[in-house]
Amino acid sequence: MSRLEEKTLKTEKIFDGRIIRLQVEEVELPNGQLSKREVVKHPGAVAILALTDEGKMVMVEQYRKALEKTIIEIPAGKLEGNEDPLQCAKRELEEETGYGCDEIEWLISFYTSPGFADEIVHLYMAKGLHVIENSANLDEDEFVNLKEVTVQEAVQLIGEQKIYDAKTAYAVQYMQLKEALQEK
Amino acid sequence: MSRLEEKTLKTEKIFDGRIIRLQVEEVELPNGQLSKREVVKHPGAVAILALTDEGKMVMVEQYRKALEKTIIEIPAGKLEGNEDPLQCAKRELEEETGYGCDEIEWLISFYTSPGFADEIVHLYMAKGLHVIENSANLDEDEFVNLKEVTVQEAVQLIGEQKIYDAKTAYAVQYMQLKEALQEK
Repeated sequence: MSRLEEKTLKTEKIFDGRIIRLQVEEVELPNGQLSKREVVKHPGAVAILALTDEGKMVMVEQYRKALEKTIIEIPAGKLEGNEDPLQCAKRELEEETGYGCDEIEWLISFYTSPGFADEIVHLYMAKGLHVIENSANLDEDEFVNLKEVTVQEAVQLIGEQKIYDAKTAYAVQYMQLKEALQEK
Repeated sequence: MSRLEEKTLKTEKIFDGRIIRLQVEEVELPNGQLSKREVVKHPGAVAILALTDEGKMVMVEQYRKALEKTIIEIPAGKLEGNEDPLQCAKRELEEETGYGCDEIEWLISFYTSPGFADEIVHLYMAKGLHVIENSANLDEDEFVNLKEVTVQEAVQLIGEQKIYDAKTAYAVQYMQLKEALQEK
């Protein structure tokens, strides 16, 4: 087993934005050579696999400027300040879909792009959904269409590249696995 | 159904690096208001769920500067120029693990961080692995330890947060689903 760590020699701050920061780090590689790493810093995010009483997955259709595409995703949002991920998940579910939930449990956390970014997504599953009056409270630059789809429909949306992102693909596969294990 | 698209009014280029580019786009929102979007441009990547004849998953342990952590991932790498993703998958598998493969098939493609980046990962499954002599040919700033783990061990590594990224979590769950469907 060889040593793998890289030592930071210098950090050059390039950009400090509303959502991300960018820095270039000069590093010493395990063999002593020097290299540079481009690193995007992100506050972290939550995503919610929200299930209706009929077992449908709640999704939001949303335009993503980075992709120049409108895609369908599970509800998600960034952590604000030192916000607890569980609280953030409840808040984002309510803001994006108008649903509160009676039950919520953590499923998994993963880094989305370890090659260049520290963004982590904490994925939760929410059940016992109920509509909260006057709750839909999107950010002022956020526009979404709500959708509720069966697992089978979600699999089809992946085939049509309408569902097209890692966290939502993971959540759909999670439901497929859950169903496969129940049917055994 | 409301209109969701955003119109780009101006693009400010912030950074043009070795791997990523960063730009800030001034956009007109669906309601006519203006906003700014921070967008990271990435060349796209491939990842390979490579299975040994014993059904073990081939993994690489690698230090990720963005995370300041050493994690275990399925082999992956960036597209070079206009490289075909399938060719890139074969090349990266060979460079990172020393394995060639007799069979390779596309499983899914997904965007990793649609909120701020256009990185897409094309995931392939490779079988019929064979060692290619003198093949391990990592990039000069790349250092990895090779591991071969059972699906059960991979699930445990997720629990230990040693496997900690979206594409690898998806690949492990893919194997769990495959096993669950076979056992029915």
